[in-house]
Amino acid sequence: MPDTFTLADVWSALVDLRARRPLVHNITNYVAMSVSANVLLALGASPAMVHAAEEVEDFVAISDALVINIGTLSPPWVAAMRKAAARARALGKPWVLDPVGCGATRYRTETSASLAALRPSIIRGNASEIMSLAGEAGAGKGVDSLTGAGEAIVAAASLATRTGAVVAVTGEADYICDGTSELAVYSGHALMPLSTALGCSLSAVTAAFAAVRPPREAAIAALAVFGAAGAVAAQRCRGPGHLPAEICDELYNLTPETLAAHARLG
Amino acid sequence: MPDTFTLADVWSALVDLRARRPLVHNITNYVAMSVSANVLLALGASPAMVHAAEEVEDFVAISDALVINIGTLSPPWVAAMRKAAARARALGKPWVLDPVGCGATRYRTETSASLAALRPSIIRGNASEIMSLAGEAGAGKGVDSLTGAGEAIVAAASLATRTGAVVAVTGEADYICDGTSELAVYSGHALMPLSTALGCSLSAVTAAFAAVRPPREAAIAALAVFGAAGAVAAQRCRGPGHLPAEICDELYNLTPETLAAHARLG
Amino acid sequence: MPDTFTLADVWSALVDLRARRPLVHNITNYVAMSVSANVLLALGASPAMVHAAEEVEDFVAISDALVINIGTLSPPWVAAMRKAAARARALGKPWVLDPVGCGATRYRTETSASLAALRPSIIRGNASEIMSLAGEAGAGKGVDSLTGAGEAIVAAASLATRTGAVVAVTGEADYICDGTSELAVYSGHALMPLSTALGCSLSAVTAAFAAVRPPREAAIAALAVFGAAGAVAAQRCRGPGHLPAEICDELYNLTPETLAAHARLG
Repeated sequence: MPDTFTLADVWSALVDLRARRPLVHNITNYVAMSVSANVLLALGASPAMVHAAEEVEDFVAISDALVINIGTLSPPWVAAMRKAAARARALGKPWVLDPVGCGATRYRTETSASLAALRPSIIRGNASEIMSLAGEAGAGKGVDSLTGAGEAIVAAASLATRTGAVVAVTGEADYICDGTSELAVYSGHALMPLSTALGCSLSAVTAAFAAVRPPREAAIAALAVFGAAGAVAAQRCRGPGHLPAEICDELYNLTPETLAAHARLG
Repeated sequence: MPDTFTLADVWSALVDLRARRPLVHNITNYVAMSVSANVLLALGASPAMVHAAEEVEDFVAISDALVINIGTLSPPWVAAMRKAAARARALGKPWVLDPVGCGATRYRTETSASLAALRPSIIRGNASEIMSLAGEAGAGKGVDSLTGAGEAIVAAASLATRTGAVVAVTGEADYICDGTSELAVYSGHALMPLSTALGCSLSAVTAAFAAVRPPREAAIAALAVFGAAGAVAAQRCRGPGHLPAEICDELYNLTPETLAAHARLG
Repeated sequence: MPDTFTLADVWSALVDLRARRPLVHNITNYVAMSVSANVLLALGASPAMVHAAEEVEDFVAISDALVINIGTLSPPWVAAMRKAAARARALGKPWVLDPVGCGATRYRTETSASLAALRPSIIRGNASEIMSLAGEAGAGKGVDSLTGAGEAIVAAASLATRTGAVVAVTGEADYICDGTSELAVYSGHALMPLSTALGCSLSAVTAAFAAVRPPREAAIAALAVFGAAGAVAAQRCRGPGHLPAEICDELYNLTPETLAAHARLG
């Protein structure tokens, strides 16, 4: 497909998101819950954290998008994730999979594969996670990747073809693959991996955009917006401590000029 | 009852709270735990998060007040909430119910109702939650209310009469109903709903005040103090990112003058 | 043993930690997860939060150190803690026990004792917790200690002798006991107990140092580094609100000069 999605289109997606204020259902890890909620609120979405098997299907039904992040998984949570994902697919609601630590343990690898089979709209992970989920031997170290995102493009394209999902591999540069094309997004800052759960928050932001745009455009918009906010925020920091708060402030105050100055598609 | 509780009385309650440093037992949601603990510490209370059915009754026995918040409920947690609430009532300890998302799913609505039947001292929620708990069709959107607090006053009064609890409905203005009277508290700031779990933290603050004052006075004091701190804190912010930290700093440094300038009872 | 471990040795341990970037496996409480992860990242370690019984043994095997903190314990978590601790011991990996609230309830006291029997490398707690774990009647109030650390030295030494662990008792001054000697570490700031989970984060930092130094040296290094960062950070604060973020920034920017100015061994 010809790549005509530009930063102006990203901005338009954000304007729509702010106007619609989508309800984003998060089934995410304990570490990421608070920062993801704050990031979504600052972005303009309405977050909710709901994980009980007793209610996830009801909650999917009233939500505009779903994100499933396995960071602190356990059997009751995985059961609920599966129910929620299946219901989202049945109702035609977009959902995003974040396979945290896929490859680090057999439990994570198998859980990630079983969720990927439930046809997520978008899969977002670091290079190790995407390579592992694609069936390659990744180079993970716990939840941090030791491999650059660029080395995972082939794996991402293969994963996209097999699952039907748009696959976003994030790292110093980010790549979005949909099986027929790839696009790089350049944004972000080296301080970001030193603040916990920002990648998880990016997955939540991706779900919010998926409520107002098709998966590929949603993934591009999320990476560009979150990365631009992160780049500006980092300039105000002398370390990683205040970075999440500064990112929220930048998301809240983001302008098309800031976006254009700190993100590039290519 | 004649309304003679003033901001001077609120200040006196805070002085007593700081002197007594009440132990507040929190059974709350994952998103709110950290910010609630920090808010309670800055206020002058001693927080603890204890949720296992194996120990909640023992912990209630050594605590000065209890807050139960169903934000990220699941069956084992609900079982522990019920045990803790029943023990608090049996021991004559004040407890606060925060029915997060009541009305959004059947599971939340039923759980909220079953907890409300265990005779909380105070119920605090937004308009949607209070209307739903009172048996009216609310206008919820996940955990955020689409209805103004003022529209929920009749429901709140009815809920107070039925349960014997003081009911606090919070929103742009806050209302406290005890079945025979109502009082408005004007404080807070429009940025506050854009930072997650501040409502949950307010419920925790309410429990702390309930350790040193009767329920109605405790609810008024909590709303006035937390709202005033929020209003001053927001003036130091360019977005919602640093708001929780600034609120903690304001709670820690609060003076009677700041309270008087940023809260009004009426 | 003659005490020849100095602040220069502490600095050397930090340099080694930053170079090795140890993977620290955390089984910790919900309140502490986010701040512990951020503190470990700022320090130079790679944190992961992994608690499912299905994977803790696999994760211990790829980790460099383990910290177990019982702050928000429940039976499934305790089962996983026991599996992880046993595996760490079997593989010769260092592990740190933080018996949060030991003495406050029977469940906490018994769980702490059962974990201490699994031979942690280091036990870190406040005076109440250490005295309770050593079998003395402590003076706890929920999770906060009412007893000074100095009063717990005899209990700490006894606990060290019985378990084989290095025991760190923290408070206004900190004491490290290994059964044959004791050492005081003077650092930190009075604001620190007013920000939640900093003690838990210190236990995580201790585990990170245990990946690069023997237990006693690791405990000393952790107390000195974290306390020095806390002391400098507190000088930038007008209350406890921004303290965790400032501590992360200080850990990230720590120099030997700052360490020497704000920590003292004696």
